[in-house]
Amino acid sequence: MRIVRFTPLSGDSDEISYGVLTGEVDQFGQPEDDAVIVALAGDPLYVGVKLLEKEYAVGDVRLLSPIIPRSKVIGIGKNYAAHAAEMGGDVPAEPLMFLKPNTSVIGPNDVIRLPAQSEEVHYEGELAVVIGRICRDVPATKEDVSRVIHGYTVANDVTARDLQRKDGQFTRAKGFDTFCPLGPWIETELDPSDVQVQTYLNGDLVQDGSTKDLVFDIPTLVAHVSSVMTLLPGDVILTGTPEGVGPLSADDEIEILVSGIGALTNKVAAR
Amino acid sequence: MRIVRFTPLSGDSDEISYGVLTGEVDQFGQPEDDAVIVALAGDPLYVGVKLLEKEYAVGDVRLLSPIIPRSKVIGIGKNYAAHAAEMGGDVPAEPLMFLKPNTSVIGPNDVIRLPAQSEEVHYEGELAVVIGRICRDVPATKEDVSRVIHGYTVANDVTARDLQRKDGQFTRAKGFDTFCPLGPWIETELDPSDVQVQTYLNGDLVQDGSTKDLVFDIPTLVAHVSSVMTLLPGDVILTGTPEGVGPLSADDEIEILVSGIGALTNKVAAR
Repeated sequence: MRIVRFTPLSGDSDEISYGVLTGEVDQFGQPEDDAVIVALAGDPLYVGVKLLEKEYAVGDVRLLSPIIPRSKVIGIGKNYAAHAAEMGGDVPAEPLMFLKPNTSVIGPNDVIRLPAQSEEVHYEGELAVVIGRICRDVPATKEDVSRVIHGYTVANDVTARDLQRKDGQFTRAKGFDTFCPLGPWIETELDPSDVQVQTYLNGDLVQDGSTKDLVFDIPTLVAHVSSVMTLLPGDVILTGTPEGVGPLSADDEIEILVSGIGALTNKVAAR
Repeated sequence: MRIVRFTPLSGDSDEISYGVLTGEVDQFGQPEDDAVIVALAGDPLYVGVKLLEKEYAVGDVRLLSPIIPRSKVIGIGKNYAAHAAEMGGDVPAEPLMFLKPNTSVIGPNDVIRLPAQSEEVHYEGELAVVIGRICRDVPATKEDVSRVIHGYTVANDVTARDLQRKDGQFTRAKGFDTFCPLGPWIETELDPSDVQVQTYLNGDLVQDGSTKDLVFDIPTLVAHVSSVMTLLPGDVILTGTPEGVGPLSADDEIEILVSGIGALTNKVAAR
C-alpha cells in the first residue's frame, strides 16, 4: 500500500489529507496516468487505514512529505563501504548516528534552498524507514523489527559538505531548513533487503547502489538506534547513502529513485 | 513569572496542567513553604497566560519537565573556555551545535538512567533558553532575540563521555532516554547575561560558573542557530556547561542551581 499526504490543488490549500495511491508505479517511479488517490479518514499511522468515499486524480493534488516526525529524523553515516571510502574514511564498527531536525523536512517537488553559509551542498540519495510503533530495545531480527516499521520512503540527506568538514559535528551541515526531502509516499509492503537506490542529477545517473550493500542492515539499525533512544511513531531512520555524492547548484533538479517505492524529485535554488 | 507543568498528586495522575508558581525562591533554588501554584488554562506558550481560580500547594503536585519540545533540543559544545580546556580542546570559532532528541527529556526528580553501553556518564549543568515564537535569521541583538525567547530553565546535558570520544559524533552519547533533565520551571523574566550555574553532586559543589563567561552569548547563539534552522515555540537551546564535569554513578543525586531560576534535582540509577 502506498500512503500519500497531500493537499488538493483546488479548494482550500490549507487542507491536508492522507490517501492511498492505487495502481502501479512504472520503472521511472511514476504513478500511472489513471492512478487515483483514495482519501483516508486521517493519518493511518495513528488511526489505521479508514478509506473514505472520496477520490482524487494524481494530477489534481500536490503531494506533501508523507510524514513530519514529531520527534526525530535519525541519519546513519558511512553505511555503504564505497561511500565511506569516497569520504576518505573507514566503515565504522557500529552504526554512526546523527540527527536532522524535523524543521529540515520538505516534500516531493519542494525546493532545496542553498544557504549562504555553504559553498558545497551535496545530495545523498537514501532509503528511509518510517517507524510505526513506540519501541525501545528492539531485537535485531527481521521479525521483531518489521513489527515496529510503518513503511519505507525515499530521502535526500542533503549535506553542506564544507560545513561538515569544518564543524566535525554533522548537525549544522545536515540541519538546514529544506535539507531533508522525503517522499513521494510511504510504501508499507517493501522487502528492503535488496532495493536499488539511484540518484539522477539533471537526468544523469550519479548514484547507483543497492541496500544489499548496507554495512549495517535495517534490523541492525533499528535495534541499535532503539537501544539508545525510544522511537516514536513517525520517526524516520535514513539508512545511509551509496557512493557518488556530489554538489548541487541553483536550478538543478535532483531525483532519487528507489526500486519498489518511487521517485523523489526536488528543484534547487538559492535561499 | 515562573511557569510550571505539573500533575496533581491526588486524583487522576494522567492529568497534566500548567501553572504559575507564586512567592520567592530561596538561595537553594527552592520555593517558599507557603508558595502556591495558580493553575493556567493551558500552555502559556500557545494560549497565553490565562489564570484559573484553582490553586495547589507546591507539596501537592509533582513537577514535570516544563516543556517537551515538539521539534528540537539544540546543544552548544565548548561554550565556556575553561570547559573547552578541560575537554582538551580549543574554543570553536563559531558556536558548535548538536541535537538531543525530545525523547531524552525528563523532569525534575525524574531518574537519570545509566545505559549499559557506557561506563562513563557525566553531568553537565547548564542554563537553557526556551524559544517562544517561530523564527528564522534572528539578528544577534538583545532586543531582537528577547522577542523570540519564552523564558529560561535549568538543564543537565547528560553525556556518555566514553561514547562521545568513541563516536566522534555526539548524537548517541547525548541522546539516550533520560539524558536531558529540564526544569524545575520556566522563568520568563531573567536577565541571562550573568547568572551563576552551580552543580552539586551528592551535596558537593562540582561546577561553579557564570554565563558572563559564555564564549558565545545568548543573542549570538539564537542568531546562529536560527540562521541554520527555523526555531519553533518550545524548542530549547542549551547554552553550554562550565568546567568541572564529572561522572555519575547509580544512587547519586545531582542538583543544578541557576541563580534567578531555581534548582533541578535528579537521582541516578542503572537502566
